[in-house]
Amino acid sequence: MTPRPTAGPTGSPTPGPNPAICVLGTGLIGGSVLRAAVGAGYEAWGYNRSAAGGAAARADGFDVTDGIEAVLGRAAEADALIVIGVPMPAVDAILSDIRLFAPGCALTDVVSVQAPVAEAVHKHELGARYVGGHPMAGTSESGWAASSSDLFRGAAWAVGVDPGTHAQVWTRVARLALDCGADVVPVIAAEHDRAVARVSHLPHVLAEALAVAGAGGGDLALGLAAGSFRDGTRVAATSAELVRAICEPNATALLDALDDALRLLGAARDSLAAEGTLGELIDAGYSERARYEDLRRWEITGIRPGDHDWLEKLREAGQRGGVLRTLD
Amino acid sequence: MTPRPTAGPTGSPTPGPNPAICVLGTGLIGGSVLRAAVGAGYEAWGYNRSAAGGAAARADGFDVTDGIEAVLGRAAEADALIVIGVPMPAVDAILSDIRLFAPGCALTDVVSVQAPVAEAVHKHELGARYVGGHPMAGTSESGWAASSSDLFRGAAWAVGVDPGTHAQVWTRVARLALDCGADVVPVIAAEHDRAVARVSHLPHVLAEALAVAGAGGGDLALGLAAGSFRDGTRVAATSAELVRAICEPNATALLDALDDALRLLGAARDSLAAEGTLGELIDAGYSERARYEDLRRWEITGIRPGDHDWLEKLREAGQRGGVLRTLD
Repeated sequence: MTPRPTAGPTGSPTPGPNPAICVLGTGLIGGSVLRAAVGAGYEAWGYNRSAAGGAAARADGFDVTDGIEAVLGRAAEADALIVIGVPMPAVDAILSDIRLFAPGCALTDVVSVQAPVAEAVHKHELGARYVGGHPMAGTSESGWAASSSDLFRGAAWAVGVDPGTHAQVWTRVARLALDCGADVVPVIAAEHDRAVARVSHLPHVLAEALAVAGAGGGDLALGLAAGSFRDGTRVAATSAELVRAICEPNATALLDALDDALRLLGAARDSLAAEGTLGELIDAGYSERARYEDLRRWEITGIRPGDHDWLEKLREAGQRGGVLRTLD
Repeated sequence: MTPRPTAGPTGSPTPGPNPAICVLGTGLIGGSVLRAAVGAGYEAWGYNRSAAGGAAARADGFDVTDGIEAVLGRAAEADALIVIGVPMPAVDAILSDIRLFAPGCALTDVVSVQAPVAEAVHKHELGARYVGGHPMAGTSESGWAASSSDLFRGAAWAVGVDPGTHAQVWTRVARLALDCGADVVPVIAAEHDRAVARVSHLPHVLAEALAVAGAGGGDLALGLAAGSFRDGTRVAATSAELVRAICEPNATALLDALDDALRLLGAARDSLAAEGTLGELIDAGYSERARYEDLRRWEITGIRPGDHDWLEKLREAGQRGGVLRTLD
């Protein structure tokens, strides 16, 4: 892929067919957004706090630097959509910079949890042009080196429909997600956070526990381990710092999910001890896995951003598994 | 793959380069043993209790029938190594047949749990020529249709080294495993069962719990699910009956593993509730997953079946992650 030539931080951006995109944080997710956006014809550039991270991206032909003021100055000048791609613990600091250097820009994020990002955005008085976002894709690798322009192809990309959402900004964010190859799932922040606690954060915690319990069997057990252990622990290979940054800001929802898992496992354990059977868990797990496999996303049509009750209609459709695949 | 022609149940088997193999139960694992053995030049045939299962195997060119008496009569005549490939709940009945029709044959199994099989074998007074076995491979599919001659390539194949093991039978079983492309892990039954509780049975139970807890988030959550949920629940797609047949006969060891997992998850839960952090679990999981990834099986050499203390030496090497890749 050859990136479109883009103007440097001090030059004048030439308006392309798509508006400009400024990505803050070019790790696995932010880096993949930058790659996919450039591939889709956007004028896009990025910021990475580490000089080495920026150098790696530049070596691949992308415009990434470690000078936040210049990067955001260019965003303000180009009226770019800013994409926050840093982990939750770094969000507050990056919002301070945005407030200082590009307070009028449209703003979205690709952070793993949505309500805490929204809260921080409002604290920095940047809420008027903010629409939250979260592409559901990743690998256990991290950093620019792991990023890929194809990461989001066919993935779900949550886009916020909380009350008061600005229709034009929403359309820009949704269009970026679609242009990256994703399906747009309209969802409010709190419901997003409860959902990902169950299908993303809980899997991480269970994988860590399995890795530890399995290794408790020593080299014999690890040497006998096959596909079920390999797949069940795959995401435990994610850096510990990143796992904490993903899971811990969603503590309330994750506690609910963990308590459900503990209750299910505790019941199976007690049944196994008392009666030698795992009880209802196995049938229930089989049928819920089948439900997941059989689930087909259906396409939401006929709801246009800005129409009467559009936010509530999109939210309701998203709750029922609907996605947007086009905007018009 | 074209199977070698083999004599019919009433004909006289021609001794090939490898001794004869009789597989009882031609589902995913037993069927794959039959395919791999034929591919490796063994005269091999099988029994399947369902006429349809036998027909499917015959349609693929393999000699599988539903007449247990004829199948075992041929085994007795050919002095075949009998491979028990039925799930644990069917082992007792198949041992009755073996006792009746082929009591003098060398005997092994590919069942997921070893001590209960050994106990049943001894109950039927078939222990003298029995060596337990368990190839660590599988998919979430089951039945002949899912079987493959390559299933065991590079896999670990546990072969029993319990006290009193017959060296010649051991060598036949180990050679079959090697000829199927596997590495042989020497292990006593009780230690095998404790190990697989942690790296095979616990992953199944956690996958079931994750499938149920995830589906608790409804279609929104399942629609947002990505790789961590897909991989973490993969083995929940295994038929519920088969999961119970795999896990429940290993109740004691599985309880230990489940209690470890519950303790780890409970501590993380309490730490998250009290302090907003997942505590030590994340670092521990990361480093144990890295230990698993970095583990390299090492080759056991210089221990010959029948040598002084060979069983104890092989057991000790297996505990330290050693495998056999050749015999003598």
